[in-house]
Amino acid sequence: MSQHQTQDITQAVLDRLSADADPRFKQIISAVVRHMHALAREVDLKPEEWMAAIQFLTRVGQTCDDKRQEFILLSDTLGLSMLVVQLDQARRSRDLKGATEATVQGPFYWENAPVLPLGSDIGKGMAGEPAYYAGKVTDAAGKPIANCCVDVWSGDGEGVYDMQKEGDAGMQLRARFHTDAQGRYHFWSIKPTFYPVPDDGPVGAMLRAMGRHPNRPGHIHMKVYADGFAPLTTHLFAADSPYLDSDAVFGVRDSLIVHYEKHAPGKAPDGRALDKPWHSAAYDFVLAQAK
Amino acid sequence: MSQHQTQDITQAVLDRLSADADPRFKQIISAVVRHMHALAREVDLKPEEWMAAIQFLTRVGQTCDDKRQEFILLSDTLGLSMLVVQLDQARRSRDLKGATEATVQGPFYWENAPVLPLGSDIGKGMAGEPAYYAGKVTDAAGKPIANCCVDVWSGDGEGVYDMQKEGDAGMQLRARFHTDAQGRYHFWSIKPTFYPVPDDGPVGAMLRAMGRHPNRPGHIHMKVYADGFAPLTTHLFAADSPYLDSDAVFGVRDSLIVHYEKHAPGKAPDGRALDKPWHSAAYDFVLAQAK
Repeated sequence: MSQHQTQDITQAVLDRLSADADPRFKQIISAVVRHMHALAREVDLKPEEWMAAIQFLTRVGQTCDDKRQEFILLSDTLGLSMLVVQLDQARRSRDLKGATEATVQGPFYWENAPVLPLGSDIGKGMAGEPAYYAGKVTDAAGKPIANCCVDVWSGDGEGVYDMQKEGDAGMQLRARFHTDAQGRYHFWSIKPTFYPVPDDGPVGAMLRAMGRHPNRPGHIHMKVYADGFAPLTTHLFAADSPYLDSDAVFGVRDSLIVHYEKHAPGKAPDGRALDKPWHSAAYDFVLAQAK
Repeated sequence: MSQHQTQDITQAVLDRLSADADPRFKQIISAVVRHMHALAREVDLKPEEWMAAIQFLTRVGQTCDDKRQEFILLSDTLGLSMLVVQLDQARRSRDLKGATEATVQGPFYWENAPVLPLGSDIGKGMAGEPAYYAGKVTDAAGKPIANCCVDVWSGDGEGVYDMQKEGDAGMQLRARFHTDAQGRYHFWSIKPTFYPVPDDGPVGAMLRAMGRHPNRPGHIHMKVYADGFAPLTTHLFAADSPYLDSDAVFGVRDSLIVHYEKHAPGKAPDGRALDKPWHSAAYDFVLAQAK
């Protein structure tokens, strides 16, 4: 019996998979085929709708460049990225016990940000109100982790990331700090504000068709990592930001919401004198041992 | 209760859809979210696998250009395109009763092929053995459809389409013919051979990882359309071609397999004298009334 006689095209595709294929790849691609076919059957997908989907995905791919990753944005806005973070944390829940919660990386991470001394101000000259960030990194037992990298990035006080700026702005509002012997970190940046995810591309059009706003609550990104520990990718969210209840990428977790204390002009904890209002945000990170 | 407290992120995404969104769009995008999330949960998708998927889809998008549609190829090779054809035919089965079966369009259709007189040879100068195509187009009751467009395209005798050739080859092996008053068509082209779908891109890599060959059995594409009738997109497959049982895009249907009769050099039915062996293929198309 020739294969084209097979009534069920889904089974025909699955039957074509070689016994020699990598088992994990086989498991995933089989699930992709089954779910994609089930989706098409469930909605009785019409040829013109299929073509619209092809054109949409093509535009998503072609909107990607060195500094823009529209497929990550698509995954983020459909909650898939955050689901993958949740699945990862659930899978490793025993190993991660007591550690700070993770959230999505988002599309604006840039490797190899400058390594700066503790106390540096990465917000200098940027739009936004100054904010002093301080805290420590420990293991789950509370033991400080010295020389731990705290890799931070955020948009400016208007919610714009360096990568989104016209021309080649270079890196802004990014740095890698290393904790001191007591596991402490501190640095200056700005207080982040809410902002729309890039919505001038196909994902923005999708959000509008869904009747959704494109905004994320104000947050600063952090990757925290040290030898011997499970690396952490997370954000700190400003407690007074709008959109905490409707983050466009579903990344908010209660444990990551931080109160930014507002201060009148004057002296900061590190001795710096400020002639305008400033904020302070304190957060301690807990890393799990690497397994 | 804030939305970020929602345990089930899938429900959180669905809850974000506006009541005002287009109902059909809402139905489809909801199904996309549910199936995509179900897929991630079923395989417990790991962050590095998610990232590999993001990079794969980005490459698929970026492999598309004016003449190459890698997303259609992806859909074709995963059986989705053919499933959409099947769903469309099933949905319209009452209206399409008695009509010729459809199959996938594939990624090599080029609009506005030259309109040529019946009997023209679009295979002249091309690699491949000459083939004479003849038949008629009727409605389901057998009544001839005059002035019906038969839009044909194929690769050459080595399985290469004009779009795949180096430089700008222009249109080759493509034409639009119109049936005569008796609904008849006839033209010359080549006998198509099996060929691999473009496998130097991300879809080719996927097929190799699946342990699948990339080949399609030899076929010639046809779009057949006339005012007042439901347009048909289909192929004719050569009965003696390899890969009829394992078409890389799952497009073969028994009713579309045609015997190419081989002839010694000599006179063809239209009076043409050939100094080399040639083939003839006869096929009658049936179109359903438009609804």
